[in-house]
Amino acid sequence: MKHLDNVRDLIRYHGEVEREVYLDLENSAPVASEVLQEMLPYFTLKAYGNPTLTHKQGWEAYETIMDAAGFISRLIGGSSPEELCFTNGEAEATSLAVFGSVGNRKGRIVVSAIDPLSILLPVEMLEKKGFEVIRVPVDSKGFINLEAFSKAVNRNTVLVSTSMVNNEIGTIQPFREIAGIAREGNSDVIIHMDASDAYGRIGFNVKDVDVDLLSLSSYKVMGPRGVAALYVRSGVKVERIIEGPIGTQALWPGVENTPLIVGFRKASELAFKDFEENVSRMRRLRDMLINGLLSIKDTLLNGPFGEKRAPDNVNISFLHCEGEALTIELSLKGVYVSSGSACTRRMLQPSHVLTAIGREYEAAHGSILMKVSKYHSVEDIEHVLESFKPAVERIRSMSPPGRI
Amino acid sequence: MKHLDNVRDLIRYHGEVEREVYLDLENSAPVASEVLQEMLPYFTLKAYGNPTLTHKQGWEAYETIMDAAGFISRLIGGSSPEELCFTNGEAEATSLAVFGSVGNRKGRIVVSAIDPLSILLPVEMLEKKGFEVIRVPVDSKGFINLEAFSKAVNRNTVLVSTSMVNNEIGTIQPFREIAGIAREGNSDVIIHMDASDAYGRIGFNVKDVDVDLLSLSSYKVMGPRGVAALYVRSGVKVERIIEGPIGTQALWPGVENTPLIVGFRKASELAFKDFEENVSRMRRLRDMLINGLLSIKDTLLNGPFGEKRAPDNVNISFLHCEGEALTIELSLKGVYVSSGSACTRRMLQPSHVLTAIGREYEAAHGSILMKVSKYHSVEDIEHVLESFKPAVERIRSMSPPGRI
Repeated sequence: MKHLDNVRDLIRYHGEVEREVYLDLENSAPVASEVLQEMLPYFTLKAYGNPTLTHKQGWEAYETIMDAAGFISRLIGGSSPEELCFTNGEAEATSLAVFGSVGNRKGRIVVSAIDPLSILLPVEMLEKKGFEVIRVPVDSKGFINLEAFSKAVNRNTVLVSTSMVNNEIGTIQPFREIAGIAREGNSDVIIHMDASDAYGRIGFNVKDVDVDLLSLSSYKVMGPRGVAALYVRSGVKVERIIEGPIGTQALWPGVENTPLIVGFRKASELAFKDFEENVSRMRRLRDMLINGLLSIKDTLLNGPFGEKRAPDNVNISFLHCEGEALTIELSLKGVYVSSGSACTRRMLQPSHVLTAIGREYEAAHGSILMKVSKYHSVEDIEHVLESFKPAVERIRSMSPPGRI
Repeated sequence: MKHLDNVRDLIRYHGEVEREVYLDLENSAPVASEVLQEMLPYFTLKAYGNPTLTHKQGWEAYETIMDAAGFISRLIGGSSPEELCFTNGEAEATSLAVFGSVGNRKGRIVVSAIDPLSILLPVEMLEKKGFEVIRVPVDSKGFINLEAFSKAVNRNTVLVSTSMVNNEIGTIQPFREIAGIAREGNSDVIIHMDASDAYGRIGFNVKDVDVDLLSLSSYKVMGPRGVAALYVRSGVKVERIIEGPIGTQALWPGVENTPLIVGFRKASELAFKDFEENVSRMRRLRDMLINGLLSIKDTLLNGPFGEKRAPDNVNISFLHCEGEALTIELSLKGVYVSSGSACTRRMLQPSHVLTAIGREYEAAHGSILMKVSKYHSVEDIEHVLESFKPAVERIRSMSPPGRI
């Protein structure tokens, strides 16, 4: 446990800071306090039964879960609560979509080169089992190459799985067009989209987009971790990928986690209440952060500017600056961000997304990913900007150009 | 949503009750308030980062998770925190054990006829894929037939998966002997045991038992749902069954659920603190409940009496009495229990466990499962006993003998 000792030393050395601004919302999030308040009674006081059982605590659980499923389903334009399957997390929902939809068929699977690892890794596992996988390239801003995509979808294609909004660089894909091209290429194809970074940030409707399967995340709208949902359009066949006692969720076994589902519902409600105002606020904070950081020399914005960028996403490469060292330096000032592709961090490889949009090794390694929320203030962003400049200078002074 | 309307009517009709005693701890549990208090700061104030990331919230999460893994690992006699893999629920842990351990091998899998559905259903899925499954019979008290078990394990056997303590009728299996016989039958076999109903109730040590894989449940010690663990003995090969970004838990993807892990740790601490006293208390309440209920005529205890029964388990068949109707009648008095095999309830089939111990259709359908905890009092059990007698009489008066 040497690593644990090192981490303990870091925490001790870190100490308390005056102002904390958490921008690592890509990887994890504190639960909004209004959401936590809503969840609390469900842990100890009400609806703590198994929703399929015939007693008061079970009936209350059933009512609560169905109400949440109906609520979330309506937010995305679904037809009924039964189309929404709650799972115990994001990876679970997307693995269910990918593994559960292909069944025993073999064939081609089409993804984009910049999809999140929750899509790319299950697909890679299927590739090892004999599926053909086409990873469609993107342009320098992360937009999927529609011509290449159109060629990729053919009559052997069993599944298209891609994200509506890129989780790292915020590119809002032309997802309606993508679905349309996929249907045209093969009317039998299953279309799965990961909407984790779209839900609560950009408007969409499952019928209008014409998707079969859609992943939704709770923590990405400041709800609790450990709950997510897969929308399964009525009539689309998905098989269970893990087995066990089945309750109200036909595709995911185990007793439903009522308190977390209540939290997911409340977080969704808060994200969609005053939707336009929330989004405008995020956009203002995002642009304030982007513009401030780009005023530091030798910086590059990853992903598009403006309307086609997710309202919460900021991703900047700091040249001649080692990203991981920068995250630690910023943490000491109470600014919490992540570097490169956070998910692959332990592998010390540059983000596959940044590589796919053509960033060189150095720009990818010196990249910082941040997401703003409606809970952040202008003062928070000012504090972040004030902290960044000296931090970047310090890290750059420690790593001479050309050697990061 | 007709069913939802019916449920709403039931809740309205139910109203409030003066005293509530929740005994359906098999299927779900309220979180102990001390456990909830411990979890609270981790939702909003501390350690809410991704444990693999280089900032304070991430380091705190890493420390918290490793501390919990080390703590729980020590409670079961494990060698290191790395042997414990947290998953997002019980079904997940046991599906990981079953699917993840057999890999691409074919061969024989040995289970007992009364194992929980979290074991039997994944194994059934493997049976459809070509594995041979042997379901070893049990005697009238639920003890596994060791001679039949010994014959079942041969050199083709790849996996033995069974529970240490039966979840429905409380039979404490001779699990050390079972593991010994399995090793003798095939030194390469993987031995998985579900310890959900043993953990915190009977003493055991993974080294002494000599198991390879062991499932642990949080909610079964009054911790939160949505977290469980699979102990994987160092050196035993298990493959991931769902894919996605990997953090500190090598076998389960997604960002770790720190607040729930903290709750699982605290609930474990409380279960093992004053272990003997807790167990004695549960045994006293259990026997008070069993004896009181057996004083009602035409009742049968399912499972063994005394030391070989789990200290918390009560399972009684009420002849000439429809179990589901009885659970509703009891709910109206604030007594929450489950009927038959709760997990298969929606299928309206008698419990496979009760069938396997030789109970006739009527006795199986009129069975009630209850579990006591250290949080219950003598007054609670008195209230339960007072509620049962008139409830059983009323249901019996509604269903004449021979017609249930």
